[in-house]
Amino acid sequence: MAVYTEVTDEDLTAFAKQFGLGEVLSCKGIAEGVENSNFQLVTEKGGFILTLYEKRVDPADLPFFLGLIEHLAAKGVPCPQPVRALDGLVLKTLSGKPAAVVTFLSGMWPRRVHLFHAAEVGRAMAEMHIAGADFNLKRNNALAVGSWRGLLASCAGRGDSVIPGITAELMGELDALEAEWPQDLPRGVIHADLFPDNVFFRGEKLTGLIDFYFACNDVLAYDLGICLNAWCFEADGSFNATKARKLLRAYGRVRPLSDAEVAALPVLARGAAMRFLLTRLYDWLNTPADALVTRKDPMEYVHKLRFHRAVGGPGAYGLD
Amino acid sequence: MAVYTEVTDEDLTAFAKQFGLGEVLSCKGIAEGVENSNFQLVTEKGGFILTLYEKRVDPADLPFFLGLIEHLAAKGVPCPQPVRALDGLVLKTLSGKPAAVVTFLSGMWPRRVHLFHAAEVGRAMAEMHIAGADFNLKRNNALAVGSWRGLLASCAGRGDSVIPGITAELMGELDALEAEWPQDLPRGVIHADLFPDNVFFRGEKLTGLIDFYFACNDVLAYDLGICLNAWCFEADGSFNATKARKLLRAYGRVRPLSDAEVAALPVLARGAAMRFLLTRLYDWLNTPADALVTRKDPMEYVHKLRFHRAVGGPGAYGLD
Repeated sequence: MAVYTEVTDEDLTAFAKQFGLGEVLSCKGIAEGVENSNFQLVTEKGGFILTLYEKRVDPADLPFFLGLIEHLAAKGVPCPQPVRALDGLVLKTLSGKPAAVVTFLSGMWPRRVHLFHAAEVGRAMAEMHIAGADFNLKRNNALAVGSWRGLLASCAGRGDSVIPGITAELMGELDALEAEWPQDLPRGVIHADLFPDNVFFRGEKLTGLIDFYFACNDVLAYDLGICLNAWCFEADGSFNATKARKLLRAYGRVRPLSDAEVAALPVLARGAAMRFLLTRLYDWLNTPADALVTRKDPMEYVHKLRFHRAVGGPGAYGLD
Repeated sequence: MAVYTEVTDEDLTAFAKQFGLGEVLSCKGIAEGVENSNFQLVTEKGGFILTLYEKRVDPADLPFFLGLIEHLAAKGVPCPQPVRALDGLVLKTLSGKPAAVVTFLSGMWPRRVHLFHAAEVGRAMAEMHIAGADFNLKRNNALAVGSWRGLLASCAGRGDSVIPGITAELMGELDALEAEWPQDLPRGVIHADLFPDNVFFRGEKLTGLIDFYFACNDVLAYDLGICLNAWCFEADGSFNATKARKLLRAYGRVRPLSDAEVAALPVLARGAAMRFLLTRLYDWLNTPADALVTRKDPMEYVHKLRFHRAVGGPGAYGLD
């Protein structure tokens, strides 16, 4: 939970004026989120989310992120829409930080994932992939397969103090992933972080995809590999193949998967587990104990990685 | 900043149903506040604040706090109004904690205090004191003058590790405060924590008094002593007598102060500085470094205490 930067009422009033938002009625820091400072802003024009971009976000990436959600929203993808200031810009400065205002999306993220959630997220992801096809900016995936060896090296030695033997296991895993990583699958704009806390629902209907700050150009089916990790494991660590089937089938009804994409799901899911394991391990080793954010246990992703390594093929994900 | 308890979407839906609030459209944890978990709740019926009472609040006090704001709001004091559930109760349970819903107040709290803020808070406090006169529940001030010796004893020894010599200085201070504390001033319901972050404004108009979780029965003018500390010192530690005069004059226009109350202001303000110094010192010594809340520097109140000790009389607060 985090608000890193305080905003004064006077600065905020001047900021809101640049966007023609009318009088500011309230502005409260949101406890969720770990990368940026987010505020729930209410003005005479309605509800908005105000984001101040903190140091973990590269300002050079902001035109990609903000342009992407503007592009997707215009195509009907339920994501926040940046509000343009009166001068036409979406990015301004507030309290010394780059800052943007986006529309407020109703809905709550599911704490317990049901089958209908998995199906909805599969469908929405496919629609997002299609809608992103003609987005004209590019952003490399800074956490793609080629980055993992360096990330592991930065944890080496110390990693074993958290999980004994982990460095050797992951070195072997990296050799396998680099050798088996698919090269010729369809690519496009992926969300790359579509966990349940980034997806809002009202009842059984998906109402919002948020937090596009890892979005990038990569293999489309890799986004599904991330979702298999994020949506289909139960709290006790068991894999729910029915949720996986619902998610993949709903995706495929909107954007049919090729045989090559289906065949690659195990290695993509295994790679996705590796990516989240590595960043969690890195954060575990590098987050001060008194930080405002709660560190996430990397061990969860060791188990997920081992699961995907052991599967015999895409049938493990409920596909025929 | 703090949300201590997570609320699931499913529990929240059932909870909102008890209050007849319609569909829950969103619920986001609020980063501000240190005692309880607060959420900005939006339902089909509008905006609300949802509070889960955490362990620092005694559940036995909740009927006083909730009854008080209901009483004050009914008399036109701009404070949150508890929403009654369909069965007539204001207090329910959510995620295993006592929980209540109150109406949402617009406005922002002033980060920089101007003269008009000081005047408005003085006026509103007087109206609150008058409106509270016929509230029929009572609550002793757990942090009244009689409690300070025990609080200091619990910091003794260790306090000097934070501020060298502080224990001896405060022991002498306590002797003086206990001897000089006024016994016969008008009493009533006081807010007891009316700092700028508990007062909302829209432009120059006060729109809300919040956070009544220290409210209690005590000397009315002691509430002014707290405000002299909370509203009238500048960031550099200097005392702004013009703000003090504005605050006290605006109060007096609504509820005229007796000569005895005016004469007691220096000792009441000095006592108020002592009370916040002691709780800050206690929290400084007893808050784990990895806690979610930011500890407040007790040294600020050492300076304030010394200021009030040195004043020659109420003239120092801008009064004739």
